[in-house]
Amino acid sequence: MIKRSILPFLLVSIVWCCTPSDQSANASLDPLPSWNEGATKSAILDYVHEVTKGGSASFIPISERIATFDNDGNLWSEQPMYFQLYFAIDQVKAMADEHPEWRTMQPFKAVLDNDIDALLKSGEHGLLQIVMATHAGSTTEEFEQIVKDWMATSNHPRFNKKFNDLVYQPMLELLNYLRANDFKTFIVSGGGIEFMRPWSAEVYGIPTSQVVGSSIKTKFDYNNGKPRIKRLAELDFIDDKAGKPIGIHKHIGKKPVFASGNSDGDLQMLQWTDSNKYKSFQLYLHHTDADREWAYDRESHIGRLDKGLDEAIEKGWTVINMKNDWNTIYPFQLK
Amino acid sequence: MIKRSILPFLLVSIVWCCTPSDQSANASLDPLPSWNEGATKSAILDYVHEVTKGGSASFIPISERIATFDNDGNLWSEQPMYFQLYFAIDQVKAMADEHPEWRTMQPFKAVLDNDIDALLKSGEHGLLQIVMATHAGSTTEEFEQIVKDWMATSNHPRFNKKFNDLVYQPMLELLNYLRANDFKTFIVSGGGIEFMRPWSAEVYGIPTSQVVGSSIKTKFDYNNGKPRIKRLAELDFIDDKAGKPIGIHKHIGKKPVFASGNSDGDLQMLQWTDSNKYKSFQLYLHHTDADREWAYDRESHIGRLDKGLDEAIEKGWTVINMKNDWNTIYPFQLK
Repeated sequence: MIKRSILPFLLVSIVWCCTPSDQSANASLDPLPSWNEGATKSAILDYVHEVTKGGSASFIPISERIATFDNDGNLWSEQPMYFQLYFAIDQVKAMADEHPEWRTMQPFKAVLDNDIDALLKSGEHGLLQIVMATHAGSTTEEFEQIVKDWMATSNHPRFNKKFNDLVYQPMLELLNYLRANDFKTFIVSGGGIEFMRPWSAEVYGIPTSQVVGSSIKTKFDYNNGKPRIKRLAELDFIDDKAGKPIGIHKHIGKKPVFASGNSDGDLQMLQWTDSNKYKSFQLYLHHTDADREWAYDRESHIGRLDKGLDEAIEKGWTVINMKNDWNTIYPFQLK
Repeated sequence: MIKRSILPFLLVSIVWCCTPSDQSANASLDPLPSWNEGATKSAILDYVHEVTKGGSASFIPISERIATFDNDGNLWSEQPMYFQLYFAIDQVKAMADEHPEWRTMQPFKAVLDNDIDALLKSGEHGLLQIVMATHAGSTTEEFEQIVKDWMATSNHPRFNKKFNDLVYQPMLELLNYLRANDFKTFIVSGGGIEFMRPWSAEVYGIPTSQVVGSSIKTKFDYNNGKPRIKRLAELDFIDDKAGKPIGIHKHIGKKPVFASGNSDGDLQMLQWTDSNKYKSFQLYLHHTDADREWAYDRESHIGRLDKGLDEAIEKGWTVINMKNDWNTIYPFQLK
């Protein structure tokens, strides 16, 4: 028998316990306020509603609601160059005193001379040399701290904001909206897995175990009872292009039903998701806003991007026109 | 204003919504009924209580509550030989017609002659040949179905039960108890990742993305718009011994606070967990019950096991004496 005097508390508990996780059920709450009304926003809302509504012919069981997001240029900006390259450049400079040979050795010389054009011209091989020299040698715990310190103290040259302030507000809302509808959200990025994990939970709400990325090999060292994992200057896995479905299979073990990307590096992930037996959703971000972010599509510092965009249009995937579809780009612009 | 007539339904909702997830709060509900009262059970309950109680000096934030479990001989039996070997042997037999050369080629001949001793004598290299011949060549979807079909139709020779009926009831209770206290449970096994994932959710409540294991390489094939991932006859990763901390770091990205194993293959995972800055727990299963399961420790078909057990005793890790600590071994023995 419940005493009348505690009933008000129980009723409060009811509300607290049982608020529907799908906030879109309440028309007064827009789960995607930074998305302008239109075909793109409607396509997302309609899809999520259709595949999560009990009794729907397209219903997807919760265990199969896997959503994968590219990171660079998709959850945060990637211009004028990948943010991880700024990190690597700053590390080269910080380590230069220990490496006097870098003063005359390319591509390190280009970095120390602040000659970014020469650095980018060194191509994949040159960039890989920079990454190996700056990302290996430490223990995993040391590297995590180096990334955290750099992220807390370095600013993007255009916006004079921390690099991870340049995440896209509409995408944060989309991640939250999918999770509120029992999707499990993953990052699947060509970027370094250990460059993203130190801040992915705080910024994106995505735990380390749901971050898939490129990696270098590591080695366990018992170290007389103070074990550590050392980072080796050897590539382990490139999570890009055809590597993305492989990385998804390796880390997640299920085919996604929802995938979001913005470049040719994401094409195979989108194709893989598009082959799901469940109704799937492909989202392709087209950078069209030179004023608030950047405008680029078929040519960029990251190479040609024509295949992904062409296939997205050809297959009727949902293409975000950043300029038209987003009323806010970054969280710091929210009023 | 809530109408009086619907109050009973709301009160039912309260109970349904708000049952405390930590059932141990209710003294009448034992979360580990298949564990006998004693030091082992108390050590587990005390640890979980201590690190999850608000205000405790040893409190662990939910995001850090990572628990890793070995599989073979730890979540299910592994005698008289690894269950995955039964699978591989059955696959060799099923594929033999397509491979007439196997009739005279070791170690395949040993399998076809049912000469298990000769097979085991072929050593790691021989077993690897068997695994590559039977685990590669298919697509990931085909292989998943092959594992499911085999698991549904094959029986263990001693118990005449399906192999995944031979999971340990006390460990199922422990997994549930940890999850009820907001631990995230992972399998970290030397066994094949794709041999475990098809049934890990149903049997252990562990989704595919939380299964870490040994793997072979794979390749994405666009296949004219019907993409598939093909399994290649090339090792990718051995998740055993020093490979376990590496696999944990690769897939989880955090050091566990709770680790459970039963052999030298688990030693480095236990050492790694033992070095956590948070209060950690190491659990070592000693197989002491020849009547209900098997009794073995320092010598087994899987090699010597002395290092893990010796270090567990030396370091004061919690050692399960199966015969004394467990009142039930398998779920089918529950009354």
